[in-house]
Amino acid sequence: MTFRARPARTLLLSTAALVFGLLAAPVTAQEKPKDHADDPAAAYEPSMTTLAEIQVEIPGLKPDDPVMTQEEFQRATEIYFQRCAGCHGVLRNGATGKALTPDLTRANGFDYLKSFITYGSPAGMPNWGTSGDMTEADVDMMARYLLLEPPAPPEWGMPDMKASWKVIVAPEDRPTEKMNDLDIENLMSVTLRDAGQIALIDGGTYEIKEVIDTGYAVHISRISASGRYLFVIGRDAKVDMIDLWMEKPGVVATIKIGIEARSVETSKFEGYEDKYAIAGGYWPPQYVIMDGNTLEPLKIVSTRGNIYDEQIYHPEPRVASILSSHFKPEFIVNVKETGKILMVDYSDLKNLKTTEIEAERFLHDGGLDSTHRYFMVAANARNKIAVVDTKESKLTALIDTGGQTPHPGRGANFTHPVYGPVWATSHLGDETVALVGTDPEGHADYAWKIVDSFYALGGGSLFIKTHPNSQHLYVDATLNPDAEISASVAVFDIAKMGGDPAVDPEYTTLPIGEWAGIPDGQPRVVQPEFNKEGTEVWFSVWNAKDKESAIVVVDDKTLELKHVIKDPRLITPTGKFNVLNTQKDVY
Amino acid sequence: MTFRARPARTLLLSTAALVFGLLAAPVTAQEKPKDHADDPAAAYEPSMTTLAEIQVEIPGLKPDDPVMTQEEFQRATEIYFQRCAGCHGVLRNGATGKALTPDLTRANGFDYLKSFITYGSPAGMPNWGTSGDMTEADVDMMARYLLLEPPAPPEWGMPDMKASWKVIVAPEDRPTEKMNDLDIENLMSVTLRDAGQIALIDGGTYEIKEVIDTGYAVHISRISASGRYLFVIGRDAKVDMIDLWMEKPGVVATIKIGIEARSVETSKFEGYEDKYAIAGGYWPPQYVIMDGNTLEPLKIVSTRGNIYDEQIYHPEPRVASILSSHFKPEFIVNVKETGKILMVDYSDLKNLKTTEIEAERFLHDGGLDSTHRYFMVAANARNKIAVVDTKESKLTALIDTGGQTPHPGRGANFTHPVYGPVWATSHLGDETVALVGTDPEGHADYAWKIVDSFYALGGGSLFIKTHPNSQHLYVDATLNPDAEISASVAVFDIAKMGGDPAVDPEYTTLPIGEWAGIPDGQPRVVQPEFNKEGTEVWFSVWNAKDKESAIVVVDDKTLELKHVIKDPRLITPTGKFNVLNTQKDVY
Repeated sequence: MTFRARPARTLLLSTAALVFGLLAAPVTAQEKPKDHADDPAAAYEPSMTTLAEIQVEIPGLKPDDPVMTQEEFQRATEIYFQRCAGCHGVLRNGATGKALTPDLTRANGFDYLKSFITYGSPAGMPNWGTSGDMTEADVDMMARYLLLEPPAPPEWGMPDMKASWKVIVAPEDRPTEKMNDLDIENLMSVTLRDAGQIALIDGGTYEIKEVIDTGYAVHISRISASGRYLFVIGRDAKVDMIDLWMEKPGVVATIKIGIEARSVETSKFEGYEDKYAIAGGYWPPQYVIMDGNTLEPLKIVSTRGNIYDEQIYHPEPRVASILSSHFKPEFIVNVKETGKILMVDYSDLKNLKTTEIEAERFLHDGGLDSTHRYFMVAANARNKIAVVDTKESKLTALIDTGGQTPHPGRGANFTHPVYGPVWATSHLGDETVALVGTDPEGHADYAWKIVDSFYALGGGSLFIKTHPNSQHLYVDATLNPDAEISASVAVFDIAKMGGDPAVDPEYTTLPIGEWAGIPDGQPRVVQPEFNKEGTEVWFSVWNAKDKESAIVVVDDKTLELKHVIKDPRLITPTGKFNVLNTQKDVY
Repeated sequence: MTFRARPARTLLLSTAALVFGLLAAPVTAQEKPKDHADDPAAAYEPSMTTLAEIQVEIPGLKPDDPVMTQEEFQRATEIYFQRCAGCHGVLRNGATGKALTPDLTRANGFDYLKSFITYGSPAGMPNWGTSGDMTEADVDMMARYLLLEPPAPPEWGMPDMKASWKVIVAPEDRPTEKMNDLDIENLMSVTLRDAGQIALIDGGTYEIKEVIDTGYAVHISRISASGRYLFVIGRDAKVDMIDLWMEKPGVVATIKIGIEARSVETSKFEGYEDKYAIAGGYWPPQYVIMDGNTLEPLKIVSTRGNIYDEQIYHPEPRVASILSSHFKPEFIVNVKETGKILMVDYSDLKNLKTTEIEAERFLHDGGLDSTHRYFMVAANARNKIAVVDTKESKLTALIDTGGQTPHPGRGANFTHPVYGPVWATSHLGDETVALVGTDPEGHADYAWKIVDSFYALGGGSLFIKTHPNSQHLYVDATLNPDAEISASVAVFDIAKMGGDPAVDPEYTTLPIGEWAGIPDGQPRVVQPEFNKEGTEVWFSVWNAKDKESAIVVVDDKTLELKHVIKDPRLITPTGKFNVLNTQKDVY
């Protein structure tokens, strides 16, 4: 067993949110052409309510406050929400980014703020001024804005949800059997980030079957237990439910569950298949359990509360990832700022039972082990993985990964030649891959420990992936500042991982970006995803909105290029979710 | 079975908070003499941190804001907290009183507010001006204050609790056996409201054994499962833990759990006796689980969240009563504004399991049925009783009492000649007593229904009481505007309740106030409490702080006066808690 702590080559960009969340402005629904007149879903107009549409009142000014007009305050609030809130929090209490409450900003002063916003910092603050993302006047305005108290965005309770909720095709008007010839299990749901859409692509023919309007920057796709319904959630907190059985798959229900959000999931426990959906909000900090057939909002639960260790109140504990338990009728809800994992029992919503597990701050994303009993989630800014026993609803372990800012996505499960079943994560902040033993019965000595840690291509990794039918482990380096690295992927041969523990396993570098053959921009390679059979791996080659992007398909056996998908509709493709693998939690 | 809805003679004073909470200013610890130099508890100085000691910043003023100095704002905040917050809420969202947020107050305007504060209203608003409680200048200031945004009082997290926490006598320095000759089981812990003290009075000899400094206006006394420790909580959120085994019983540990609070309880489930204590806050809205031996704060849980029915966020859901389950290792925590009953499993604080039961808004106080399995709690402003099955942690029923503002205290359990086991509540807002059937197995037809409802002395009742060894049901009318009624008590003969259901049972009126023989003031009779054997009933005769008060003891068999306790130390006696009956939940 080896565990090597090495000086990390910390990245300038230390969080996916910087790129996933902030580098582009929303495209409004109006910009998108509507051409499916015979589609029942055509009546549906996605709403894009953002803070820009909500009147924010300037707080009362004190004698030493900087001068700011109502118009400036409104615009600054919107810019803050778009660019800054992801890292610093809506109420500026800090998370991945520093706290920016007026007591702190005033101590630093206007000039300091202006310079910081203009030039950024090596710790991860982007150079909004010199990058051209903000004008000099905007930077000036934002510096003044930060000296004022932050306005709290509006709440978003049941009346708001109900007002935003639309059933486009009622359950009784939906088909009773599959009405199309799609190979649903092998569909890929691909986020077209800046277009506010997803594409459904055939995993066998690589053909784009549908492009569907959704919320902005869809964060994830999830599949109902039956495999029929696809749920997506935009960063604008818009949830869309897509019926894959319809002749032309489309949105059958939609709801806006807040102002900003990241996660959606559906009930998977036996007897509750397709019964409920759940979505978690960044703002307001809450989750909502919905009817799995219509998205009717049923129960909203606030996550406001105390940080697990310091036990001081946090006004903005955001809901990060949500997963469905296979062992109980429970959703696993990860609350970022308070570091709590909530096991939410959905068997009785009127007498809602929740187990609040003290884990670690800054919970982000995670996945199940190969048996589906244990859930592993990264507490990213604390460099830890929390392990939850979903059968007992208890914390099993808290593991320091030895790396900087683990970012597993759902992680990768495989059987290591020496350590047995392991779950792997890569890191945003350095180049290491860490393996956690996940077999307390067969390999008790290795269970819930970092059994090995080794180098991949470079820092800035967002996702890691394998498949039960594959002998390869793929690691991207999407946010690496080096263009060549960010366009490549490291592939490890699992069978060869059992060598000298003092020597890192070797990896093959696949020049995915080069294979895509895109002449313009600096496309980054992100998120390996297997097809249904686990024989091919798909990579997004993600370029700027106005430039060509692509999806590159690699043969898992030979590691050779199999296909490049290019299409004018493939605008900023990021996450891809194979229906069967997502439905069955195979990763 | 009769249920008669009658036009209620609604009271001017519609809540106990008006009297219990607001009619007197705190006495600071400094005013009280210290004379027990050889007492280990003498080192302990009770803290009285109120908003007066916390700097509140005036919010920024807008062009149309009324003029207010920082000093006025500070003082108005304190007055609001002392006089108004109990009914209107700290954040002015309203509860028993109306909402007073600036959008509403500005619509009504300055003159309207000034007049309202001065003269009160028939709906329950006191006449602060004409009563002399506020000067004209204060009324003017308060009207201006209400036009401004309410300042949020500070949070009170673990660092604040830890700083306020003191162990005066460490567990290892406490006696290992009872060191006094007190008949502990028959002690009465009596709140001396305006003195910020409790008196321990012998239930057999009527002798005041100790007067102990506590928080201000102790709301309740609770006894640990073993019967050794007495816990009291002041309105100022100060919890004091008193060791009844010490030669001279005194405070062995103390903590301030917030700014304002009402409830404390200790763990009673088998295996957890004396292990944990819990206290619930009005501000901040949260509860804290503490070590039952030292009051060390272990876990703070916020109650902020959504109102159960409308599902909109409420920033100030206050913790009303808390009870300990006898069927599970659970505390029953009643959250007023959101209408939720939390069954908090204390068997594993790191993986805290809570069942959040949707009940009804404005939960206040309640108690267990005679089997201790069912918990009944009044949703007072909704005129309902919620019944919880503590064995199943589920809502059993929600019952309209047919009366106005039920205020059961813990209620009264007895066996009705016709309806079998029932639990009774009186009402604040009218003169009715309502009986709820509590025997789903033996009397299924009557279970969880109002089986009878009849008149007592008059409205304004706060407490109702009987005892397994008694055949009488006592009902006070403390807040009745009629001085004679408020100084009397109605007594029903339980055996005679089985007569013609169309005719109200008769009652005897006991002139408790007259028996007390107090010449000055308008003493009110409050809270019948039985001695250990259930043979004598004690009543507080509660007068103004500078006037004589008394406790009147009545023989339960003969209904004759047995004894009057008078003592200069008996300042504003209100609640009394017999150790054994409180320990065993006998009521």
